[in-house]
Amino acid sequence: MPAPLLGKLVVFGVGLIGGSFALALKRAGAVGDVVGIGRSRANLDVARVQGIADRTYVVDEAWHVELRDADLIMLAAPVGQMPGLLAAIAVQLGPRTIVTDAGSTKQDIIAAARTHLGDAFARYVPGHPIAGTEHSGAMAAFDSLFRDRNVVLTPVAETLPAAIDRVDACWSACGGVISRLDPARHDALFAAVSHLPHALAFALVAELAARPDARDHFRYAAGGFRDFTRLASSHPEMWRDICVANRAALRAELAAFGDQLERIDRMLADADGAALAALFAAAREARNTWLAERDGGSEE
Amino acid sequence: MPAPLLGKLVVFGVGLIGGSFALALKRAGAVGDVVGIGRSRANLDVARVQGIADRTYVVDEAWHVELRDADLIMLAAPVGQMPGLLAAIAVQLGPRTIVTDAGSTKQDIIAAARTHLGDAFARYVPGHPIAGTEHSGAMAAFDSLFRDRNVVLTPVAETLPAAIDRVDACWSACGGVISRLDPARHDALFAAVSHLPHALAFALVAELAARPDARDHFRYAAGGFRDFTRLASSHPEMWRDICVANRAALRAELAAFGDQLERIDRMLADADGAALAALFAAAREARNTWLAERDGGSEE
Repeated sequence: MPAPLLGKLVVFGVGLIGGSFALALKRAGAVGDVVGIGRSRANLDVARVQGIADRTYVVDEAWHVELRDADLIMLAAPVGQMPGLLAAIAVQLGPRTIVTDAGSTKQDIIAAARTHLGDAFARYVPGHPIAGTEHSGAMAAFDSLFRDRNVVLTPVAETLPAAIDRVDACWSACGGVISRLDPARHDALFAAVSHLPHALAFALVAELAARPDARDHFRYAAGGFRDFTRLASSHPEMWRDICVANRAALRAELAAFGDQLERIDRMLADADGAALAALFAAAREARNTWLAERDGGSEE
Repeated sequence: MPAPLLGKLVVFGVGLIGGSFALALKRAGAVGDVVGIGRSRANLDVARVQGIADRTYVVDEAWHVELRDADLIMLAAPVGQMPGLLAAIAVQLGPRTIVTDAGSTKQDIIAAARTHLGDAFARYVPGHPIAGTEHSGAMAAFDSLFRDRNVVLTPVAETLPAAIDRVDACWSACGGVISRLDPARHDALFAAVSHLPHALAFALVAELAARPDARDHFRYAAGGFRDFTRLASSHPEMWRDICVANRAALRAELAAFGDQLERIDRMLADADGAALAALFAAAREARNTWLAERDGGSEE
């Protein structure tokens, strides 16, 4: 029997993403030993019971001893905690250990890694799996979360090719579809297709909820409102971190969207039905084409 | 056996809404004869085969003979066609015939009815069933579409109480939950919870689709984007009509939403994570409370 891809994996943040990564690697026979580290003892207990991790530590325990012989460290914590985690692991990092992450923003985490990891920065492979559900925690993890999902790696000039290949192989073992992007390009694209929609959904619900007659509004909200605002049920702290980390790109998207809303407002002021219909038709056509190419047109 | 609520129903626009209304009344034993009138002969053929209508006419046929002894006329055409339809039916309206509609906007249709219906305006009961699917046409109609759904009636001072009661009874027979609103209040509330989300979804997809690198964006769009933009797959002409008809209220909502986006942009510029987290948490709390009250918290 060949040795697994990874002898030892250390996961910081054993939630939906980190837990599913460990489960998928275990199912693929691609990892030997998994160590889970996190803030909540209860969640870590779940992670052991679920077979995600073989050993677990809460963050104030002596987990540093686990790092020196680790093949891979996966940082799957909220983006805002990454600088602190990178600083904490830097001290005890083994000479061959590769570090990767699953953060939704890349330039900020790369900058923190460059600051804290020293020579080991060449063994840090920035990553972003495009997967998730509205649930969180180890209980929500499952081994097929990444199957056929996009996983974006954003290595920089210093990143060792062998480290990239190893992380690439891990995501392949999880069933992911791996691609590479420049970090700034990554942050710009995800500001547009993910961070902006989240901000808009939060914005709309918060604006309505703050009205004195909010109850009357929610009384008549229906299925379309439910779909449009689903992202507003996302985790506030996670999205605070992402929006702050990627604020330059997100502000550019907000500005572009504001310009679009001004165009629509002008069409409404002019009662320009032809222009509105053309814009709406272009949107429907683009969305339906995207859906058809994506997964045969299914809405679910 | 008692006489049904309606001896004869005439439906203009035998699509998802008009067709489901007829089917629901038939299932409840609340209607005798159903006449369907529309623009597409093929759709009307479907309506007869599906048992929605007993007789059908395309709009350029001699359907006027069917109006004089009709108990109820349901106008279920796109909002932009309502003025023309009201003018067309006014000439041959029977002396006891009640008229209602299923339009998503109310002030504009009421104004057109006041212009065209003469004395019969007192027998016009403005209505708006809050139901729908992404499908359209007679084939999409089903008899339980309105079950437990909100149906809003927006009568005015002149509207005869007996006419309101009759339309109310029809929607009750369809399983609807009937409430009444002032027409201006209706248009303001639906601008906020329905028309604005549609406009925002169309706006986002059209803006991304118009970029030279649109393909790169859609390449990385995922499940959150799909939900957020589902409304952008709605019918362009239907939503052009609604947006133009309700443009005053919609422009007010666009302005309020623009102010909210400016507040968020300011928080981003200041990297004010606490303010962002508070706004996001307020949105999540409000949405989850709404979901829980609405249907026990189900997302589907």
